[in-house]
This record gives sequence, C-alpha cells and structure tokens, in this order.
Amino acid sequence: MADTYTPPKVWTHDAENGGKFANINRPTSGAREDKVLPAGEHPFQLYSLATPNGVKASIMLEELLEAGCPADYDAYTINIGEGEQFSSGFVDINPNSKIPALVDRSEDKPIRIFESGAILLYLSEKFGKFANPTPAGRAEMLSWLFWQIGSAPFIGGGFGHFYAYAPEKFEYPINRYAMETKRLFDVADKRLQESEYLAGDDYTIADIAAFAWLAPFTSGTIYEDARTFLSIDQYEAVGRWAKTIADRPAVKRGRIVNKTWGEDDEQLRERHAASDFDGKAI
Amino acid sequence: MADTYTPPKVWTHDAENGGKFANINRPTSGAREDKVLPAGEHPFQLYSLATPNGVKASIMLEELLEAGCPADYDAYTINIGEGEQFSSGFVDINPNSKIPALVDRSEDKPIRIFESGAILLYLSEKFGKFANPTPAGRAEMLSWLFWQIGSAPFIGGGFGHFYAYAPEKFEYPINRYAMETKRLFDVADKRLQESEYLAGDDYTIADIAAFAWLAPFTSGTIYEDARTFLSIDQYEAVGRWAKTIADRPAVKRGRIVNKTWGEDDEQLRERHAASDFDGKAI
Repeated sequence: MADTYTPPKVWTHDAENGGKFANINRPTSGAREDKVLPAGEHPFQLYSLATPNGVKASIMLEELLEAGCPADYDAYTINIGEGEQFSSGFVDINPNSKIPALVDRSEDKPIRIFESGAILLYLSEKFGKFANPTPAGRAEMLSWLFWQIGSAPFIGGGFGHFYAYAPEKFEYPINRYAMETKRLFDVADKRLQESEYLAGDDYTIADIAAFAWLAPFTSGTIYEDARTFLSIDQYEAVGRWAKTIADRPAVKRGRIVNKTWGEDDEQLRERHAASDFDGKAI
Repeated sequence: MADTYTPPKVWTHDAENGGKFANINRPTSGAREDKVLPAGEHPFQLYSLATPNGVKASIMLEELLEAGCPADYDAYTINIGEGEQFSSGFVDINPNSKIPALVDRSEDKPIRIFESGAILLYLSEKFGKFANPTPAGRAEMLSWLFWQIGSAPFIGGGFGHFYAYAPEKFEYPINRYAMETKRLFDVADKRLQESEYLAGDDYTIADIAAFAWLAPFTSGTIYEDARTFLSIDQYEAVGRWAKTIADRPAVKRGRIVNKTWGEDDEQLRERHAASDFDGKAI
C-alpha cells in the first residue's frame, strides 16, 4: 500500500482490474443473454446456489415442509461463476442478478420475490411460521433479521473478498473488515449469552438468516483459515447456538440444496422431491 | 498497492490502523460508559443522526404524522463521532451500536426496534401505511426494501469509505466499490424507467429506504465530487424519482431531524413538536 493513487475526476470501467470476478462484474445491470429458466411442478420455484444467502431460502422451505406447510418446491442451481444470473429469465425475477430468487405460483398470478431477507419474511408471513406474533416479539425478530442483512456485506463482500478473493492481500481492507466481522460476532455472542435464540426463546427467520452467515465460520473445513485468523472459537455462545441449529433435520437438508461442491453425497444440484435427499450425508 | 502484505495466522487489533474512525471502531461490542438516554413525552422516542440510515426513520415518522397517524415522537441526536452510540442507554436499545434506534412506548411495555429497515417495516405494519397490501405488492415491496438494505454497505461502508474516509486513496477498493455503486444505480434506474416507484404505482417504505441512500448523490452539495466521479447524472429515472420524493413535505422535514451540520436553518438537533420546523429552510 506504499504507492498513493489519485482517483480521476470521472471513473471509467477497466475490465482488467477486478480480481477473481473481473469477468463477471460490470457497472451495468440487466440481461446479457436470452434464456428461459427451467420450472417444475411445485408451487414454489427456487433459483439459487448453496452460498450463505442461498441456503437461507432452502433451509426456510425445508423448515416449512417439516412443519407441515404446503411449501413444496423445485430448486434449480444458478451457477454464478458462469454468469447464469444474467440470463433474461433470471433477470426477470431478480433485476439485481443475485441469488436466491423465488417464484410463488400458489396465488392468482406468479409472484417473484428476490433478496434472501425478503424471501424469509414473505414465506414467514404467508405461512405464519418462524416469526414471533406479538408486537414486542416481532420488533425483536425484525431488528435481528435486518441486523444480519445489513451486516453480511461487511463479512462476505468485505472480509471474505479481501481475505480470500482479491488479487492481492491488501492490509488496510483486511484489517478494516476483520475488525468489523469480529465485532459482529461479538454482538451475536453477547446476545446469545442472554437469549437462546436471537429474537428470544423461539427459533425464527432471524436465526435462519444469521446461521447461514455465521455457522460456516464456527465449524466445517471451508472457512478453517478464517476461523483461526478471527479467533472464532472465543465466541462460545455463537458456537452453541450454531450447533443447535445445524442439528435440525430441515437445516441439514436445506444446506445441501443447490450445492455443487464438496463430496458427492453432500451435493444436491436440483431438488424436486423429499426423496432427493435419500442417501445423502445429512 | 505495490507492496504485498502477508496476513498473520491470527489477526490482532492495532488501534493505529483504522483511518478516520480508528478511535471509534473496535473489534468488540457493548457499552463503554454508563449513561441514561434522554426521553420526552411522545409515544415514540428516536435516537438518531441525519445520515442516510438515520433519515429513513425520521422521514417515516413525519410521513405517518402527515397521514394523520398517532406517531408523534421525540428525536434526540446521537453523535457517533463522539461515541455516544456506546453509552449503556443506547446499547440497551441497540446492542449493535448503530443509529437509528427507536423505542415504542404505546404498547403495554416499551418496545425497542433497531436497524433502519426494521424500524420502517415495524412502523409500516403498526399503522398499515406505505406498504402494498396485496401478496404480489408486498412481495415487490419487501424485495426492493431488502435490496436497499443489503446494498447500502457497498455504497456507504464500501464506496463512501474508500473514496472519502480511508487514510489513503487505495485504487483497488475504489474501483471495486465504484463499479458496484454504479451497478446499483443502474438497477434502480432500469426499474424506475418502467415503474413510478420501486414497488409499483405507490410510494412505499422501499422508496423511503432507497431515497435516503441514492438522493444525496443526485442533488445537493455534499456528494458533488462523487456525483461527477460516478457520472450519476446518467441515471435520469433515479433523478426524476428522487426529486418527486424530495418535494414531499414530510421528507423535507424528516431530512433535517437530527442534522447537526450545514446552515443553521437546515439543522434540527432535537425534535419534539411540529412547531420545531418553524423558520427552517424546508
């Protein structure tokens, strides 16, 4: 970071300067190719990938099915490394070209829902599940849900990008986002020392959202270096809470939907029926 | 960016390396001093600052009052540069130590709500205002609301930080976040070319949220350099929409609540009554 850069008066796009995703990211939005999305028979169609944001939607749908709600769904993988989020079909249901996106065909007309937080809240309201019904409980649930949504870009787009994906290890951004990621873990840890779940005694969509982002740091192999780097083991209450949630059958299923990496029996590229999980390591 | 940095195995906090807010930001959460928050007579108590996230809450409360709802409020300034968000009183209502935070005293017990998106949604549900009531309309509103909440950290914590606040001008992060900020403007612009408001024909809390972040780029003096740098004038539909919203009387009032900079008649450090706006340049 020795050389000081002077920004130009007007920024212009240089496709060479973008790190690992330079060929994917652009300063413009919209469809890059005409292509219709596949669709199955169920009321819900999910287009996703098993990233932290993606698994929020599949965990929620599996939780609803576990709870007996008529929320059956077909899930199709959107390969974001190949730019499938820029097909005309996907852009029609999410003009922001990010996974997950959902179509609800159980109403008069198909309804699109994009953004993982919106999908959680929409499904929670539609089925009356995983949200505290009292005004005080709902306020707490909404507060922690939005806390997660507003925080994740510092963890993923910030810490994850500069720690793992940027073309060089830049010291200042790594320090900036490591500090904020630790602070966010500390916020969750203090809360989970006093409360079983984020919004109180009950498991809600605020937990599903935060679990998706925090749990990969607490166990498993993918984030091992980051776990050490950020001393994640010190957040014991987060670890306890993450383990409780990870043990839920619906969560185990939801985490492998649209997963395209890891061992064969930990992947499920498409999901169309409960039997698709037969033989999986969950 | 010539020198390559090698991160240590375990990150440790170095208070010297943090840019403009190095003395404020820490890797831990929680109260740093014992201090009770002030409180007034109204059902709602707002603790905020007129940043993009802060004005979402004050605009919403002013819109509710304009619509005849019993949403009267006292607003107190939290000076985040002085660390007032780390008082015990503030941490009690927002353990994440970010403005805005709200207390609703109109229910059986006081209810805390933190995170600007949660405050918008909570108030919208409580009073049945500024949200589309149909399932399709609600899905669209929630999608655009969460789009804003998940995007703002790339604009503020990303572009704003590296363009304006970081201790040096680092080329890679500036390029990264300039590109993403432009892409987000383009998403909004394409949507607002086809729709009067983000969620459809009606003004909703999704517009209040996005307006707070996008409008300062489209007019006014504070973001002038960034407006040029990002060629914001090309997003004409965003400019049209921002101007329509900026002209609403409630928005004019809400934008100066908890404002502590600019001309004297554009500031309102505390708000306790409608008459507090008398003589202001709104």
